[in-house]
Amino acid sequence: MVVTGNQCFAEKPARWIWFPGDYEIWLGNDLQNRRTERGTFFPPFWKMDSHYVMVEFSTEVDLQEPETIYVTTEGRYNVKIDGAFQTGMPRQLTIPTGKHAINIKVYNQATVPALFVQGKTIVTGPQWKATFEDKEWIDDSGKASDKTGTTYVQAGSWHFDTPENKPSQFKLATKLQSAVKTEYVNQGLLVDFGRETMGFPYFHGLSGRGALNVYYGESREEALDKDQCELTDVYEVDGTKTSDLLFSDSKAYRFLYIETSGNLSFSNLDMLYEYNPIKYKGTFRCNDELINKIWDVGAYTMHLTTREFFIDGIKRDRWVWSGDACQSYLMNYYLFFDSPTVQRTMQLLRGKDPVTSHMNTIMDYTFYWFLSIYDYYLYTGDKTFIESLYPRMESLMSYVLGRCNERGLLEGKAGDWIFIDWADGYMDKKGEVSFEQLLYCRSLEIMAFCAGLLNETGKQHDYSTLAADVKRLLMKEFWDPSKHAFLHNKINGVSDGAVTRYTNMFAIFFNYLNDQQKQEVKKHVILNDSIMKISTPYMRFYELEAMCAMGETDYVMKEMRGYWGGMLKEGATSFWEKYNLTEKGVEHLAMYQRPYGKSLCHAWGASPIYLLGKYYLGVKPTAPGYASFEIRPVLSDLTWMEGTVPTPNGNINVYMDKKTIKVSASEGEGYLYFKAKSPTTSAGTIEPLPSGEYRLLIRGDGTPVTILLNAN
Amino acid sequence: MVVTGNQCFAEKPARWIWFPGDYEIWLGNDLQNRRTERGTFFPPFWKMDSHYVMVEFSTEVDLQEPETIYVTTEGRYNVKIDGAFQTGMPRQLTIPTGKHAINIKVYNQATVPALFVQGKTIVTGPQWKATFEDKEWIDDSGKASDKTGTTYVQAGSWHFDTPENKPSQFKLATKLQSAVKTEYVNQGLLVDFGRETMGFPYFHGLSGRGALNVYYGESREEALDKDQCELTDVYEVDGTKTSDLLFSDSKAYRFLYIETSGNLSFSNLDMLYEYNPIKYKGTFRCNDELINKIWDVGAYTMHLTTREFFIDGIKRDRWVWSGDACQSYLMNYYLFFDSPTVQRTMQLLRGKDPVTSHMNTIMDYTFYWFLSIYDYYLYTGDKTFIESLYPRMESLMSYVLGRCNERGLLEGKAGDWIFIDWADGYMDKKGEVSFEQLLYCRSLEIMAFCAGLLNETGKQHDYSTLAADVKRLLMKEFWDPSKHAFLHNKINGVSDGAVTRYTNMFAIFFNYLNDQQKQEVKKHVILNDSIMKISTPYMRFYELEAMCAMGETDYVMKEMRGYWGGMLKEGATSFWEKYNLTEKGVEHLAMYQRPYGKSLCHAWGASPIYLLGKYYLGVKPTAPGYASFEIRPVLSDLTWMEGTVPTPNGNINVYMDKKTIKVSASEGEGYLYFKAKSPTTSAGTIEPLPSGEYRLLIRGDGTPVTILLNAN
Repeated sequence: MVVTGNQCFAEKPARWIWFPGDYEIWLGNDLQNRRTERGTFFPPFWKMDSHYVMVEFSTEVDLQEPETIYVTTEGRYNVKIDGAFQTGMPRQLTIPTGKHAINIKVYNQATVPALFVQGKTIVTGPQWKATFEDKEWIDDSGKASDKTGTTYVQAGSWHFDTPENKPSQFKLATKLQSAVKTEYVNQGLLVDFGRETMGFPYFHGLSGRGALNVYYGESREEALDKDQCELTDVYEVDGTKTSDLLFSDSKAYRFLYIETSGNLSFSNLDMLYEYNPIKYKGTFRCNDELINKIWDVGAYTMHLTTREFFIDGIKRDRWVWSGDACQSYLMNYYLFFDSPTVQRTMQLLRGKDPVTSHMNTIMDYTFYWFLSIYDYYLYTGDKTFIESLYPRMESLMSYVLGRCNERGLLEGKAGDWIFIDWADGYMDKKGEVSFEQLLYCRSLEIMAFCAGLLNETGKQHDYSTLAADVKRLLMKEFWDPSKHAFLHNKINGVSDGAVTRYTNMFAIFFNYLNDQQKQEVKKHVILNDSIMKISTPYMRFYELEAMCAMGETDYVMKEMRGYWGGMLKEGATSFWEKYNLTEKGVEHLAMYQRPYGKSLCHAWGASPIYLLGKYYLGVKPTAPGYASFEIRPVLSDLTWMEGTVPTPNGNINVYMDKKTIKVSASEGEGYLYFKAKSPTTSAGTIEPLPSGEYRLLIRGDGTPVTILLNAN
Repeated sequence: MVVTGNQCFAEKPARWIWFPGDYEIWLGNDLQNRRTERGTFFPPFWKMDSHYVMVEFSTEVDLQEPETIYVTTEGRYNVKIDGAFQTGMPRQLTIPTGKHAINIKVYNQATVPALFVQGKTIVTGPQWKATFEDKEWIDDSGKASDKTGTTYVQAGSWHFDTPENKPSQFKLATKLQSAVKTEYVNQGLLVDFGRETMGFPYFHGLSGRGALNVYYGESREEALDKDQCELTDVYEVDGTKTSDLLFSDSKAYRFLYIETSGNLSFSNLDMLYEYNPIKYKGTFRCNDELINKIWDVGAYTMHLTTREFFIDGIKRDRWVWSGDACQSYLMNYYLFFDSPTVQRTMQLLRGKDPVTSHMNTIMDYTFYWFLSIYDYYLYTGDKTFIESLYPRMESLMSYVLGRCNERGLLEGKAGDWIFIDWADGYMDKKGEVSFEQLLYCRSLEIMAFCAGLLNETGKQHDYSTLAADVKRLLMKEFWDPSKHAFLHNKINGVSDGAVTRYTNMFAIFFNYLNDQQKQEVKKHVILNDSIMKISTPYMRFYELEAMCAMGETDYVMKEMRGYWGGMLKEGATSFWEKYNLTEKGVEHLAMYQRPYGKSLCHAWGASPIYLLGKYYLGVKPTAPGYASFEIRPVLSDLTWMEGTVPTPNGNINVYMDKKTIKVSASEGEGYLYFKAKSPTTSAGTIEPLPSGEYRLLIRGDGTPVTILLNAN
């Protein structure tokens, strides 16, 4: 690659590097502080961390011939070769033949200290080390200390691969997008972009003087409600500048309503759509156009909310919430399989020590973060990332352990938000809430798992023991055989008998219940209309996952059509933060006591992406990173379906109709499970299983395999 | 006060506020990263912290009439009145009559979030609260949470008192200073400013093109040694700009040597002296001009190194070092009594949690920080500051406790620098070094003291117990009666019999030894030439303090003349980092194996300021903040002396000759102690004491009191 201005022809690509997690924190601050509400700055209410302002990067090289390296940084810097300062801030220098240590220290308060080094063989990348304190001092004799106390970590990096492509300058992609309909309403112009979108309003042919008053609406009603729409902008035009005006803030809307004052006019309004230029790797098609549309709108919802990070919604909050992100990750594994965005989001959420509150201040959200670590490892097999997070996993868990009550369980303390879900009814969040204990228990199991993965056997034992204790207490205190369900909570050890869905449905796919108990929960809780219903796609995700895990794919197919199909019938062009089928008309727009408070594009609305990939195409990893996998396609009431599930370095393709299954996989090795009368294939030996299913070994060599389900 | 542009006539002065400690960290990063070495950026090697990027400030008001407030910030912000967002970023708004809560949230990544509010009665200042996480969330019903989990602290502030006087724009004062001598040497011009100074070189009448090569020297030799002087600058002049050039970096020097290239010439060179416009409150004069000069050069040394913070030296490192600062604080109490600079320095040094290494990486420096807290409280009586530091005192001590060995003592672990002193001989720093245990013990005592001060009785007990344990071990393991001294160290419980001065002299003024033991130490260690001598003013400070504490003021007077007088004889215009009387000529300039490595203006060189005020004028507090004090003037071999010692809100003045003592104090109450034959005064009753001394009660009402020592 030719590095601009450097006359250097490199053998390897270089990457900008930084202290791991720091760029993510910095970019997260930038993103999360862009929120406004009717022109008022609206930042998050939890601690915002900051990067290390001084970072030393280092590597060791062994050169066959002298090599010139070109140094670009974001920040003031110095360079040491073999411990000796190089004069000034050298832009290029030549490293002699042989073994040498290169240390470059970068200081930057405003943006993240970052380094780009490009030589023929010497290039920055994750193989470089980083530290925020080098602890090297010079003694009286002029000798440097041995730096044995310095903690080095692997440098962080992403896709910034030229000196000009500086991390602090990162922007999402944009493209011009025109309105589909324009009409004059009252004193203004209403512009409809046809579906939920996000980007920069772009006015053309401005003339005269006055104010542009812009009212944004995810719905027509919102845009036209000048007093109560959530997002507004006012821009004063004095007629002296250019006649084209591109807004500098990107906002979410489908409709824009514009009123002008003075003699201001404009000829045209379109927008720059702002998006993450990410590739759709997962696909799904079937004979049912409603399901296809649900998948498409789900994918679009995911695309809109997959930005610098996985955010909750594009109108608001545009913040990174751990519980929301946990679902985005899972959907991502069936759509984009974009691991860098998962990593960025998880790093931002964790931030820096010390931990002073739960993640996003929410106790459950702390635990979802642990849950997502296991998911990440299972889907990607990326142990290195787990390793880099592990110290901060430990400090977060130690914060949690420090807040247990004398029974070893968790109750909300001052400042702890027990969220669980937005419910359309009363939910008691005081005392020991069983749902929090359940997530706590699973998080401890994941700590034990990761400790084992990193050969921390002492820690593995400690966390396993703790997890077993909590699980025992969870079952003893909250499983009520007479109710065939977990109780919702206990205050001072006493329950009022209330049962909610949350603990019960999670306990199914966590496998904390035996088959008998699962069936009891299904009947007495999930299919029991007297238990408070769920009105967010957020918890519908887990409810349907629980049903799928019990093989209730027909039920779930129907629910998808009813719930997500219901939103489509209401005109949704992306999926919503909350949907209650009993509400009507503009009731669907309201939330938080505000008429347009609801987000109409919320990541957690997109769960059919995940459900269709995992439980209908039936693809999931059974060993980290799809080293082994399972394909268990389920047609339910469809007549055919086909789709692709991405894996770390390839795809698994599945086609199924009532007579045929066709699969291929490009990495790993796994089994295809299916039911059939008398299946045949030319691609191996089909084994009948005691369960009545058949299975066939599928090798990840890309070969298409066809099974005829009923050859006779 | 009239606030510019606000048409507002305020009843109270407002101050810019920030999260306490954050401005100090930010300013410290700015200062400490200005160091260069021959043009190469040379930052500190320890962790640099950063400010909270998002801070919420709040106050509650109760208004008799509506009041308009004017809001200025450094950062993006929002305003809530009684929990309700105000539109946009209001520059001014009116608060109605009655009780109201004002919350203003400020975001700033590059500089510290800061707020200035000015109304008639509503003004920002330390009475406002600050938090870095407000934890306020909105529930489904639109209701805000009660924020009970939010930790508020008192806002930080300093002297920034107008909207225009922004904290991030802070600069020290400057004034024009001319050279005292100019001569041509070799191909260049040597300019002598007459004494050690610091500031911005200022070239006038530049014409032609070429490079200005500037070589800085604290000594003539250094400036003329182009290859080895520590500080250099090169500035390219292309003849197209102004003919005057003011350098943008302030550096330390007495001499500037300039060579130009091309046809570049200039008519004149002077400088802008950069300084802290701080008031000398302490004074000292006596009949001995050498002592007067020592005091003056000491005060100038202190002035040069008392800048944004108390720094070590002005040539290098221009960093804030805890051990150095601990002495600066003490000298400050006898010269400037500038508490804000003490507070800033202590806050910067402590930085933010988590603690990842000792302060400046040096174990002893961690402990000096604790020691300086006690000193600060004793001299200022400022309990509020102790309160605000206490949580971080605890986390720092908990870091220390986590590094104890199984005997409960401290050994250097990887990354720990055991400094003690720059010595002209071998000092073993391995194993359990007695000096570190001594400082550790004293630090635990101070933790116990502060816990008691803040009514943390449980903690007080714990720290007292720990301190007693360490003291017992210190005496048992290291006090060697046969050597009449503390042993230097033990490795695996075994000493090689080495004795050094450090533990022994500190144990005297810590009062860890009885009178008998003190006399033994005096004879067998301090006055014993076979024990390695001290060659830094840094440890001379403590050695002479120990001697003064034993009443050896005649000895110390002689030592001051010899040691500091010795530096003056060598031409010192400020006091040095190190001074070995046996060295000659340019040997005095070298250190760290570099010919000009030594700093010739080092804060720790100024200790006579402290010794003369505390042990000759004899003034010290005996209760916090000079609520009570002691004046014990000692002439030693002087015939007369007079001087002033500043107190928090006043002064204590002392004059003494062989016949008379005159004192006055403007606050507190204390005793004047003196020896005399038959003293008389009209100012009260002189009490004879069993020791043979007399004492007289001095009230802090400013009344001059005269005692005739030998009336008969």
